[in-house]
Amino acid sequence: MQTQSPSSVDRSAEFRRWKAQSLSKADLSRKGSVDEDVVELVQVLNAQEQFFTTSSCAGRILLRDGGINGFEVQKQNCCWLLVTHKPCVKDDVIVALKKANGDAVLKFEPFVLHVQCRQLQDAQILHSVAIDSGFRNSGITVGKRGKTMLAVRSTHGLEVPLSHKGKLMVTEEYIDFLLNVANQKMEENKKRIGRFYNCLQRALEREAISNSHPKIKEKNNPSYTHKKKRNPEKAHGKSITEENNKELENDDDDNPGINVAIFPEDY
Amino acid sequence: MQTQSPSSVDRSAEFRRWKAQSLSKADLSRKGSVDEDVVELVQVLNAQEQFFTTSSCAGRILLRDGGINGFEVQKQNCCWLLVTHKPCVKDDVIVALKKANGDAVLKFEPFVLHVQCRQLQDAQILHSVAIDSGFRNSGITVGKRGKTMLAVRSTHGLEVPLSHKGKLMVTEEYIDFLLNVANQKMEENKKRIGRFYNCLQRALEREAISNSHPKIKEKNNPSYTHKKKRNPEKAHGKSITEENNKELENDDDDNPGINVAIFPEDY
Repeated sequence: MQTQSPSSVDRSAEFRRWKAQSLSKADLSRKGSVDEDVVELVQVLNAQEQFFTTSSCAGRILLRDGGINGFEVQKQNCCWLLVTHKPCVKDDVIVALKKANGDAVLKFEPFVLHVQCRQLQDAQILHSVAIDSGFRNSGITVGKRGKTMLAVRSTHGLEVPLSHKGKLMVTEEYIDFLLNVANQKMEENKKRIGRFYNCLQRALEREAISNSHPKIKEKNNPSYTHKKKRNPEKAHGKSITEENNKELENDDDDNPGINVAIFPEDY
Repeated sequence: MQTQSPSSVDRSAEFRRWKAQSLSKADLSRKGSVDEDVVELVQVLNAQEQFFTTSSCAGRILLRDGGINGFEVQKQNCCWLLVTHKPCVKDDVIVALKKANGDAVLKFEPFVLHVQCRQLQDAQILHSVAIDSGFRNSGITVGKRGKTMLAVRSTHGLEVPLSHKGKLMVTEEYIDFLLNVANQKMEENKKRIGRFYNCLQRALEREAISNSHPKIKEKNNPSYTHKKKRNPEKAHGKSITEENNKELENDDDDNPGINVAIFPEDY
């Protein structure tokens, strides 16, 4: 084990208290339980002393009624007409839409996960895992009293206005088409969760190895260095890396108009 | 001035080199210049020694043709049929759609900004500014060699499939309706940029004051503490804070299904 300064000992103790407190509390979500598709992932993270999850959603299709305020962006009194974590068929949406009296919007919301991390370095490792698995909008938050969170977020959504003041603005054929797109995104989202799970396992294995060899750790594991570069593990990670590169290129195709003064290399 | 350790002097010098290099390079974006609506903001940030911007987009409506791969999520050979940073009318989209031979998708992409920061603490201050201005998906990235970036991101998008294999799936009336929604989001997006600009100015003023009183700084400015809590400046910030709270509540209305094991207080 490495020697720790008194302040890092304090920090560790405080983190353990937060974690115990968090995991002992009831699940306050509407659903009241962790989504099936991320149960294992959440368990793996919570079994690590340096992490605990504070919220998650595996991904879902939802239909929201936005009130009768017309084009208002910030909707008051919006309500949910439909929520599902499974593929969705046209008739479900048609039935739910009958209850809409405002501006109904169909959304696909991808996987999202919040993980509290013991130290910045732990968050960095998890951030690398997230980016490597295709969750490009992930980021770290460092809050008051050193609370360090990683948010895992995807770029991969769908948000489609369907009705205006209760009047349906699209055809049933369109809804059918749209749900095919949404279900496809749900499928892709599941694959990314799988990738995240696998990348995480490998990162944790590498951590375990470097922790059991503190000198190697000292040398190879400075703060502010991304894990993936430290231990490339080409044989293991190759197919995933290639997949991601393709994906990122595609995503970049979406963004050539962003004003890039320059993106620092190796960012 | 505070005394600095040799490593923080090195870090500062390295940051200045990165910044000089970055700002001297050509703008590699398709457009080749910073969007009008964020020019001032970018200038204010780049005038600070602790920040420089690496990419930005003020917000835009775009129409993308996704190739003829049907429901494939990762589109190859997608091309842009229309991009605008201004409000958009139906006829522009109708004309552009005539060139679509695949799955055309209309998107509204809100403001996005990447800022490289000298230290984690600088990124934290900017992160607070972003969250306080309503950019809830913002986050910090700490890369190799200590490169610390803040990404400012909004939750506030639109992504609507319009055609399938070149066939238009919606009516012109729907496109008109959709563009009203998109233009409204563009308007709201501009307001948020304004809020970000104002919050930033206030945060920088507070920084300047605490830097000119190092003892106050020592006392009130520990690492890992959010600026907004340190110096609440209620008189200044009140209306904006109230606006944001309302907004966050509304946004939360969108997310009651997320499995919240518990969100740590004060996060």
